[in-house]
Amino acid sequence: MNKICILLLLVVFQGFAQTDDEKQMKAIYNAALTQGKAYDWLNYLSNQIGGRLSGSVQAQQAVDYAKAQMDSLGLDRVWLQPVMVPKWVRGTPEFAYIETSPGVTSNVSICALGGSIATSGRGVKANVIEVNGIEELKKLGKEKISGKIVFFNRPMDASQISTFKAYSGCVDQRYSGAAEAGKYEALGVIVRSMNLRQDDYPHTGAMSYGDIAVQERVPAAAISTNGADLLSATLKLNPDTQLFFKLNCKQLDDVKSYNVIGEIKGSTHPEEIMVVGGHLDSWDLGDGSHDDGAGCVQSMEVLRLLKVTGYKPKRTIRVVLFMNEENGLRGGKKYAEIAKSKNENHVFALESDSGGFTPRGFSFDCTEANLARAQSWKSLFEPYLIHLFVKGGSGADIGPLKNDGIVLAGLRPDSQRYFDHHHSENDRFEHVNKRELELGAATMASLVYLFDTYGVIR
Amino acid sequence: MNKICILLLLVVFQGFAQTDDEKQMKAIYNAALTQGKAYDWLNYLSNQIGGRLSGSVQAQQAVDYAKAQMDSLGLDRVWLQPVMVPKWVRGTPEFAYIETSPGVTSNVSICALGGSIATSGRGVKANVIEVNGIEELKKLGKEKISGKIVFFNRPMDASQISTFKAYSGCVDQRYSGAAEAGKYEALGVIVRSMNLRQDDYPHTGAMSYGDIAVQERVPAAAISTNGADLLSATLKLNPDTQLFFKLNCKQLDDVKSYNVIGEIKGSTHPEEIMVVGGHLDSWDLGDGSHDDGAGCVQSMEVLRLLKVTGYKPKRTIRVVLFMNEENGLRGGKKYAEIAKSKNENHVFALESDSGGFTPRGFSFDCTEANLARAQSWKSLFEPYLIHLFVKGGSGADIGPLKNDGIVLAGLRPDSQRYFDHHHSENDRFEHVNKRELELGAATMASLVYLFDTYGVIR
Repeated sequence: MNKICILLLLVVFQGFAQTDDEKQMKAIYNAALTQGKAYDWLNYLSNQIGGRLSGSVQAQQAVDYAKAQMDSLGLDRVWLQPVMVPKWVRGTPEFAYIETSPGVTSNVSICALGGSIATSGRGVKANVIEVNGIEELKKLGKEKISGKIVFFNRPMDASQISTFKAYSGCVDQRYSGAAEAGKYEALGVIVRSMNLRQDDYPHTGAMSYGDIAVQERVPAAAISTNGADLLSATLKLNPDTQLFFKLNCKQLDDVKSYNVIGEIKGSTHPEEIMVVGGHLDSWDLGDGSHDDGAGCVQSMEVLRLLKVTGYKPKRTIRVVLFMNEENGLRGGKKYAEIAKSKNENHVFALESDSGGFTPRGFSFDCTEANLARAQSWKSLFEPYLIHLFVKGGSGADIGPLKNDGIVLAGLRPDSQRYFDHHHSENDRFEHVNKRELELGAATMASLVYLFDTYGVIR
Repeated sequence: MNKICILLLLVVFQGFAQTDDEKQMKAIYNAALTQGKAYDWLNYLSNQIGGRLSGSVQAQQAVDYAKAQMDSLGLDRVWLQPVMVPKWVRGTPEFAYIETSPGVTSNVSICALGGSIATSGRGVKANVIEVNGIEELKKLGKEKISGKIVFFNRPMDASQISTFKAYSGCVDQRYSGAAEAGKYEALGVIVRSMNLRQDDYPHTGAMSYGDIAVQERVPAAAISTNGADLLSATLKLNPDTQLFFKLNCKQLDDVKSYNVIGEIKGSTHPEEIMVVGGHLDSWDLGDGSHDDGAGCVQSMEVLRLLKVTGYKPKRTIRVVLFMNEENGLRGGKKYAEIAKSKNENHVFALESDSGGFTPRGFSFDCTEANLARAQSWKSLFEPYLIHLFVKGGSGADIGPLKNDGIVLAGLRPDSQRYFDHHHSENDRFEHVNKRELELGAATMASLVYLFDTYGVIR
């Protein structure tokens, strides 16, 4: 056969292959949009169970529910993977007010940051020093900080197109603000909520005291964006303004929890494992619909969609619902540890942990060759308006699986509304659109299908 | 100069031009996201004025408000363009129930379609015949239809990725269902709401009796998707089920209203006019935030963004807020009629009438050369995640401006949530995200900037 013939055959063959891919993807999207299960599952997780903080009764209910649903899908294997998780509890609701002069007060909306200690005794009342970040805190030093409440008020940068970029530009205040302020003998820390919207919801989230001794730790809370603006404006009018706040949270001993795992065994390369997952725990203020109930039900839906469309994967496709992403990442670390100890060959992992919004594409943490392979499928995704195939982060839970050969990927939904909800009471089922959620699941299933069909370049 | 030199210079020149474009677009997006006015304007239109049905007090308030805001922007000229519009009023709330046997009833949520006649006397009560569209109605014929209420229940096709495609696949039932059913002596028409979601909101919208004599017209209402499913299930259990409904709407005489227009005169080609617009009227059930308050405030914002970024347009940029898109298109027709009578040279028109959601791109109704020109700017839009530059419809209001040379364009936002809100009580300000709205305005301003800078190919 001459070269031209071979070339011609290749073109014809690829033509057919393309058509098969198009058909399979169309079947996946159709099934997701017309007979999807993700939305019903999320309804249960959000409205029948609710917020699923690590170590809570709700987290355990979610484990039981997810396992039961996976059992009903006819997968080849479903199991629980034990993992010890931290147990932090919020206690009775937090309370705060601004006092401009004795007895003249305005309540503001706050919540303890995850991992904070409680305020001692009846609460903290002190003068407030507003800073725009940790750098400014350091410049002010002990003299200006000691005995005061530090108010971190650098807002998210609204000019960023990706709200995640705006988030990473100021989340250091939340994560490390208390540890830093403690070094200068502050009495407490109040952090502007990581929210691009003006509203009354305080947004919690993880913080760390680093290696600071227990007796030197200061309590830390988030204040709503409206509350932050009120406090800032009040301080400008009257620098002697005081803030009172009381937190009733507590760090208890670690407790046993689980990653929930299910898999379809691969037909020709069962030893090659492809993971798709989200995290089953959430913060306690809302019902955790976007963060990350959405990612969990989408991941379960990926396996269901492959099954109902009659696709038999060559590789083992595994759904993993990770426990404790929010305040410890113990589930992600445990999963990778066990995988390593068993010498499992993970070739691919995809995480959905950016909300159940209209999917725009993926970011990839992998070799250039595999990125190019993914980008070669762009035209297949075009009818579904999936256009982002970029290098970037994947997801916290699958991060510990990283090695030179693996393809790590993160679903990239539209990010504009995410921080309206993230870690707050406003993360609720009613803010998830059924179709947007389903399109995300179908998009994930399509990428899994393609990498299973064409393989990962090692 | 040899060819290579010319090529090199061209590359260098285009390099510089590109940089200027990038800077101007960055300035536009920054201004929209950090000091935008669109959201405040929409807040007023939606929450201080509300639904703006043609001929209503609210429509007039919106005209006055929009003109006052345009006056405050320092445009070169702001004016009202009179236009006579139909005045249809809903009257007291509609009412409907399903009666399975005498006295055993379930209320269902309905609303009159825009343009419907009222039910006569105390309302209509009759047996119901469910059809999946006009074709089935025609097949059944007079014998099966006469004396009954026709229930059009073909749902939107959830497997469509564009919800507008799903809409156009069944909106004939709403627009022409009553005219067709009237021919077979139906007593009334009930149409499943154009909504992809299961909920209790009936969605109104325009319908037409065509040339049917007044005395032969039958009343027509939309039923919520939940109501439609209940009615359908009830009919399956008991085909003798009756439906009662009462509409109190009325068509009054035409009244005077206005298109609201403002412009910045072009510096070098003032005779070339570029229009950007939306429609100021809305249906009466919600506050018309997405349809089309969003398009109006985005269009006003386009001119403000060009001004605050210091851009001096070469061509005349005109914002037009059209009156009566929903039930007559009188504003769009009048604008084109006057433009023609004055021999105005319109080279470009852009409409935003698909909701204030995250913008994805544009569809263009223009020559291949101009489409290619727009597509050549794709990389400029990439940082803003704008990726759709396709051939397609533009907008109803700018349609009458069509000629061989003009570029007509429609903003294409994400469509997934649009029909959750469209024409129903659920089209409310709280469902508009500030950033999504602002990104739309900046995207429109960028396209206007580029076509003004590089011109339209005639």
